[in-house]
Amino acid sequence: MENAMQRYKCTISYDGSNYSGFQIQPKDRTIQGEIEKALKKLHKGVEVKIQASGRTDAGVHAKGQVIHFDSSLDIPADKWPIALNTLLPHDIVVADAETVPDSFHARYNVTAKEYRYFIQLGERRDPFKRNYAYYYPYALNMEAMREALSYFIGEYDFTSFCSAKTDKERKVRTITGVKLTEEDNMLIFSFQGNGFLYNMVRIMVGTLLDVGRGKKLPQDIPVILEKKDRKAAGKTASANGLYLWKVWY
Amino acid sequence: MENAMQRYKCTISYDGSNYSGFQIQPKDRTIQGEIEKALKKLHKGVEVKIQASGRTDAGVHAKGQVIHFDSSLDIPADKWPIALNTLLPHDIVVADAETVPDSFHARYNVTAKEYRYFIQLGERRDPFKRNYAYYYPYALNMEAMREALSYFIGEYDFTSFCSAKTDKERKVRTITGVKLTEEDNMLIFSFQGNGFLYNMVRIMVGTLLDVGRGKKLPQDIPVILEKKDRKAAGKTASANGLYLWKVWY
Repeated sequence: MENAMQRYKCTISYDGSNYSGFQIQPKDRTIQGEIEKALKKLHKGVEVKIQASGRTDAGVHAKGQVIHFDSSLDIPADKWPIALNTLLPHDIVVADAETVPDSFHARYNVTAKEYRYFIQLGERRDPFKRNYAYYYPYALNMEAMREALSYFIGEYDFTSFCSAKTDKERKVRTITGVKLTEEDNMLIFSFQGNGFLYNMVRIMVGTLLDVGRGKKLPQDIPVILEKKDRKAAGKTASANGLYLWKVWY
Repeated sequence: MENAMQRYKCTISYDGSNYSGFQIQPKDRTIQGEIEKALKKLHKGVEVKIQASGRTDAGVHAKGQVIHFDSSLDIPADKWPIALNTLLPHDIVVADAETVPDSFHARYNVTAKEYRYFIQLGERRDPFKRNYAYYYPYALNMEAMREALSYFIGEYDFTSFCSAKTDKERKVRTITGVKLTEEDNMLIFSFQGNGFLYNMVRIMVGTLLDVGRGKKLPQDIPVILEKKDRKAAGKTASANGLYLWKVWY
């Protein structure tokens, strides 16, 4: 007798260094591709599609990405991580799994997300951090960056902080929380919000670094937002410092 | 006019994950190979040989490896790190350089070394630590491991803790300091001594893990040392957890 289909929600972590991003692609290695390959093995050759809270780009990492999938396999929720981790490469780890109602959707039901961006400071590049933080050897004005950061809180049209390559029409998003911490030569920017546009965090960080170096003023942030022009903001900070940290439902 | 030859001592850090060890090899990528390639570029095609405090194996890392080389280039000591780091891949970093007398030798003058071995505990493998710590999901008796560790302090014949592949005749070494710390699901073993045999730290760690799991007793350590037989000790722990931490002269 075939079991009934059950929907599972999984929290996954991955080191994105060796992947061409999350979304499955015909030729390149992707996170989705590896997870669906593992699921196919478990399901004896039957394809199982996963849905994620959103994509991540090549080189971007995740501490708490969330996915869902349906399966009729007779595996208890708490055994799914072991079943999948045994088949997955070691840079993708299923941390947790739980059963959810069929109405749950990993992308549509997202209420908030947190991204973190790591920056390594100091005179010498740390060889152990090269894939896990953006190396930035210049002196930074922390006070100015904190002030600039605070201007992002609220509901704004983030067109200036969105890659032109986006397919999204509506560019209004709400940032509910920001934080900047420094510890052991590592800066960590944290952004919580109801949604993020393509490259949004990386462009915000690139702009904040301009503020930190004195190339822009904290009060320029509202002006840049107002312009709704990608060219008004700073550079897109590199992918290796970015982590999808947490997703809320 | 040609400058006189000057000897330089450099401290280097490297992520050994993508290398076939320290020592230069005809075909495979090695740490020595990359550094000598960078030196050759700086010296306009003239080969410059480096000497290190000792080799490290494939996958083994270094926080504070020490090398020396001779050069007649007119570069001040404090500019050598920048000159070399610009040419080196990002997983090898020259942290520091100083001038030393011609009598200095990075291998012959070593008075002591420290190695550290990192072990990731916990129910799930950390995808960001896969190359930087040995993942060991079993419960460990810390007290027993600390007691076992203390038996290594002193001067002993370490034949039982040396790979049969060694070319060293004399197997007597002195361990002067040991430490075991635990923080955030990470165990760190530290060993200081006047010298270490081939795979010695990794075999000590493999044996200590046997003690931690109750497969061996702390008091077995002196018995294993006494046997002078590699088969009496535990397995060789994997390369990814090992770091050459510091070298003293």
